[in-house]
Amino acid sequence: MKIVCNKSDLLKGVSIVSKAVPSKTTMPILECILIDASMDIIKLTANDMELGIQTVIEGDIITNGMIAIDAKLFSDIVRKLPDNLITIESKENNQTTITCEKAKFDLSEKAADEFSFLPEIEKSNQFKISQFSLKELIRQTIFSIADNDSNKQMTGELFEIKEGLFRVVSLDGHRISIRKIELGEETEDTKLIVPGKTLQEISKILSGELESMVTISYTNNHIVFEFDQTMVVSRLIEGDYFKIDQMLSKDYETKIKVNKRELLSAIDRATLFVKEGDKKPIIIDIKDESMELQIKSQIGSMDESIEIHKDGKDLMIGFNPRFLIDALRVIDDEEVTLYLMNAKAPCFIKDEDENYIYLVLPVNFSSIA
Amino acid sequence: MKIVCNKSDLLKGVSIVSKAVPSKTTMPILECILIDASMDIIKLTANDMELGIQTVIEGDIITNGMIAIDAKLFSDIVRKLPDNLITIESKENNQTTITCEKAKFDLSEKAADEFSFLPEIEKSNQFKISQFSLKELIRQTIFSIADNDSNKQMTGELFEIKEGLFRVVSLDGHRISIRKIELGEETEDTKLIVPGKTLQEISKILSGELESMVTISYTNNHIVFEFDQTMVVSRLIEGDYFKIDQMLSKDYETKIKVNKRELLSAIDRATLFVKEGDKKPIIIDIKDESMELQIKSQIGSMDESIEIHKDGKDLMIGFNPRFLIDALRVIDDEEVTLYLMNAKAPCFIKDEDENYIYLVLPVNFSSIA
Repeated sequence: MKIVCNKSDLLKGVSIVSKAVPSKTTMPILECILIDASMDIIKLTANDMELGIQTVIEGDIITNGMIAIDAKLFSDIVRKLPDNLITIESKENNQTTITCEKAKFDLSEKAADEFSFLPEIEKSNQFKISQFSLKELIRQTIFSIADNDSNKQMTGELFEIKEGLFRVVSLDGHRISIRKIELGEETEDTKLIVPGKTLQEISKILSGELESMVTISYTNNHIVFEFDQTMVVSRLIEGDYFKIDQMLSKDYETKIKVNKRELLSAIDRATLFVKEGDKKPIIIDIKDESMELQIKSQIGSMDESIEIHKDGKDLMIGFNPRFLIDALRVIDDEEVTLYLMNAKAPCFIKDEDENYIYLVLPVNFSSIA
Repeated sequence: MKIVCNKSDLLKGVSIVSKAVPSKTTMPILECILIDASMDIIKLTANDMELGIQTVIEGDIITNGMIAIDAKLFSDIVRKLPDNLITIESKENNQTTITCEKAKFDLSEKAADEFSFLPEIEKSNQFKISQFSLKELIRQTIFSIADNDSNKQMTGELFEIKEGLFRVVSLDGHRISIRKIELGEETEDTKLIVPGKTLQEISKILSGELESMVTISYTNNHIVFEFDQTMVVSRLIEGDYFKIDQMLSKDYETKIKVNKRELLSAIDRATLFVKEGDKKPIIIDIKDESMELQIKSQIGSMDESIEIHKDGKDLMIGFNPRFLIDALRVIDDEEVTLYLMNAKAPCFIKDEDENYIYLVLPVNFSSIA
């Protein structure tokens, strides 16, 4: 194999597929990027068996062929080369030579046939969404997946399509995040559980452009995202997702409107008194025109009042400040509305059309207050 | 005590003195900042017993007094407050209240009289240098101090004044870095060993302005830096510094001029093949018009040639690439000159006036080449 490409094209491709290179593995071949120039295009691929990414880069193929090469070393080399043409040539004895201007690198390649190629996915079921929307939906929900494996479903997000509405859901036992958008076309109903890691990596690759579309196809076991010159293939998480609709009550006794930035800053300040791992709640005392935020710990205490518009009853309720912060941070609205029932029922932060719904469970504070 | 100051003034002062707050200590009072408003100015002080920093901030004193307060918590609170007036008030029961707009924090203070105040230093011996020069001198030498304590002198830098010339020297057993400038006035000859940590922290505080001066005073045991509204007091390292002049030979057999950026990039690329802790040398083969850089390791090999202007003999010599990189990175010249004797003698990188001299010992490569 011998190919020539621009540093910038190569670097972009390598950093895209590197997202699927596992940081730890017992199989050295998984640490490799496959450079496939066996046909008339140059494809880079990495695959950690759960998540695989393939991208096509610009370049000239002088001799067809295919090599597997250590991803970390290869990407470091490309990054440090001058901004010029790079030649990659496979030599005898499994040696690859990389040259750029007067610099020449020799390193050993792995046998390309040991590489685990991406599975062939039948693309019968599919829908389209803009890069912008997909990136936003992920950003606005990904924080509330559970990061441990004790419940596999919680480590993923629900992708649900129902009557043309696309709903993305994540939950971790203390809170639920839901984002919804309309799909432009009539799409078949489905429910998929996509691994959180897949979504985190995809969201780093997505350009986030409004005009550029992502085609999402799926089978029972796999989901495929195609955009720009890139294809991301991921396993799905098996099993049924949680029945969330029965947790979403529309009743409330107290409804407040508040400036988002003010509320977020105040809660953020309160966290100064909560040490890592400590479970001090922030206590919110809702009155007619204002609410008072209070936190107390061994370190000290904070007290701050914020102006609000309130409908309904007064209420005193406690929360894990972290959970409120996570939700408020991803909401783009200037003003947010909170719906509350009583001190033991969940708080809902949602907009009128329920394009976003953040449910946060309260914390018992009776022993503290 | 009750004072009122701007968030930005307070934050700036707190982050300056925080440089002298130890990250680990068994004495809780050392983790504090002293706020001293007992006279007609507001002084902030921190002191880890080796290094002490004091700075004066703008603000109004409502009631005189003095408190000690946890540095980390205090600086986090100030950072997260709105950009407005902050009131700090000492209450009964060793409680301090910090208020800003509608936010109110209560935290416990430490007894100010437990605080270890800065030592009074007699300022009879002193000289002046611009903030810019001091910051540059530190940046261009600090990288070659030794970071372990096996030899105390190596963890500091020599400040030497001789016949109006100010010379800053650091060395670690493999290399020596020397920077020299003329002082504007007739100054008394002296030799001081300043702790590397002191210089690292000072260089973060120095604005680096050409017009603003630093006054440096010293006794047998202490050095004091005064600039802007800030005073930094540090212990000196005891003992005699190494006799470096006898290591600085002016003889050479090979002299080469080379573009600094090209040389630096090539050596930087070569380090890709050297894993952390590995001691692979880079081998430099100096010929008439070019030199060839080579590195070989288990991972792979690199080979690159660079154009040079050479006087004298051909030479093949090996170096720890890290040491060459460290020196080249801090040199601002576009072209650098290297002076070499043979494969076992040190390489000198220096300018004609010897404003900077970097000595790097070679590495034996006979077994490798």
